[in-house]
Amino acid sequence: MKIAVSGKGGVGKTTIAAALVKLFSGVNRRVYAIDADPDVCLAAALGIPDDITSELKPLVEMKELIYARTGGEDSYFTLNPEIGDVLDDFCICQDNIRYLRMGGVKKGGSSCYCRENAFLNAIVSALLLDKNDVVVMDMGAGIEHLSRGTARGVDLMLVVVEPGLNSVNTAGLVKKLAADLGIKKVRIIGNKIRNRREKDFVLKHFPENELLGFVNYDEGVWESSMESGSTITSKESFLRNLEYIQQKILNEI
Amino acid sequence: MKIAVSGKGGVGKTTIAAALVKLFSGVNRRVYAIDADPDVCLAAALGIPDDITSELKPLVEMKELIYARTGGEDSYFTLNPEIGDVLDDFCICQDNIRYLRMGGVKKGGSSCYCRENAFLNAIVSALLLDKNDVVVMDMGAGIEHLSRGTARGVDLMLVVVEPGLNSVNTAGLVKKLAADLGIKKVRIIGNKIRNRREKDFVLKHFPENELLGFVNYDEGVWESSMESGSTITSKESFLRNLEYIQQKILNEI
Repeated sequence: MKIAVSGKGGVGKTTIAAALVKLFSGVNRRVYAIDADPDVCLAAALGIPDDITSELKPLVEMKELIYARTGGEDSYFTLNPEIGDVLDDFCICQDNIRYLRMGGVKKGGSSCYCRENAFLNAIVSALLLDKNDVVVMDMGAGIEHLSRGTARGVDLMLVVVEPGLNSVNTAGLVKKLAADLGIKKVRIIGNKIRNRREKDFVLKHFPENELLGFVNYDEGVWESSMESGSTITSKESFLRNLEYIQQKILNEI
Repeated sequence: MKIAVSGKGGVGKTTIAAALVKLFSGVNRRVYAIDADPDVCLAAALGIPDDITSELKPLVEMKELIYARTGGEDSYFTLNPEIGDVLDDFCICQDNIRYLRMGGVKKGGSSCYCRENAFLNAIVSALLLDKNDVVVMDMGAGIEHLSRGTARGVDLMLVVVEPGLNSVNTAGLVKKLAADLGIKKVRIIGNKIRNRREKDFVLKHFPENELLGFVNYDEGVWESSMESGSTITSKESFLRNLEYIQQKILNEI
């Protein structure tokens, strides 16, 4: 099962992606948690210290290695979880979670992240998973990862929205562009819900069968964002809030 | 005066950019408000209806036109406010505000926005301003616009932060990458401040001379984000909150 988490900036993509990684790691054999934004935050949310994350080789550096083994840029390649000798060098392992990052921080004015996005797409498409394995990709804010096709090949595109027109409009664009990419399932999660009015606002904008569920605003999550080393996965109340969404994801696939 | 507004997704870049556009338009001859994200939101914040925005030709389409006049890809070109016959076709004019957008929405999987970013940089660099003219660019979330060099040539990079470690870390990256680009002034605005503890959190992370000021959390701004046609520029209390920041910007330049 390959999942991408997208949406407008600041809606809670990383928080929800990290919570899902943690919940899936409790029931699944192996969870790949992939930061698809050079401005990485998923690692911190999973409790991986900054100095370890910044030392991690970005996925794109695997390109030469794979091409050397498979015979050049134009070859097809397949990856399965058993060829750990390639992938392990690019992972931070935490129990059965394997954290990977798309690309490192580059010098200002040096280049775009097109190569990184293209390679991430190739890797995720090539990854052969066991029945109980899960990939969760935390996408960059906005829509460029869709026009680039980074998430092409995922089984499920989760779009996080908050009760505001901008995030609802972005979700509308994500749905449209995901369809262009041939992604069959796009589902909405309403996040930071404080009251009935905000829930109704989200309900008004999406058909019921597209809505996976709601996550209440959690003051503890906001407060803890100021504390170093705080991880979303230690927020029990928030995780409980996500459990039924995890169940609905399992039913979808 | 050319200003770029950047920061992590969701910190309030667009809200603050729109408020500054409105405030500067009250005292300046001409304000260029530029949406540097294909997932445009600045227009709505300025009260420009979606159907008008979506009809607006993106700036990148001006490329052929300018190259035809100036003699090809490699020529230098200069733009000044008097050659309105070129720029006017790509603007929505609202009093003395001229709204422009970098690029339109593309089909999923079709391409990146590298060409759009490069051309926006060329345009902003080439724009010759009168003494009282202001350019305000609302950048995409995260750091790719910096590694691409889109905002190279601005006089001031404003970085919006909220009281959370992720947005503070992103601001640290923005400062570093902006220095790579040769941008001399980078200033921080602390947004969504609810109490003394949150203000102190921001103060702890940035030297005083880098901090332009604080903007209090405004429940009215959040509430109105659910209403169609609501504009940030109608929120008087929020605008008043930004006035002393506008004054500090004028003192900086």
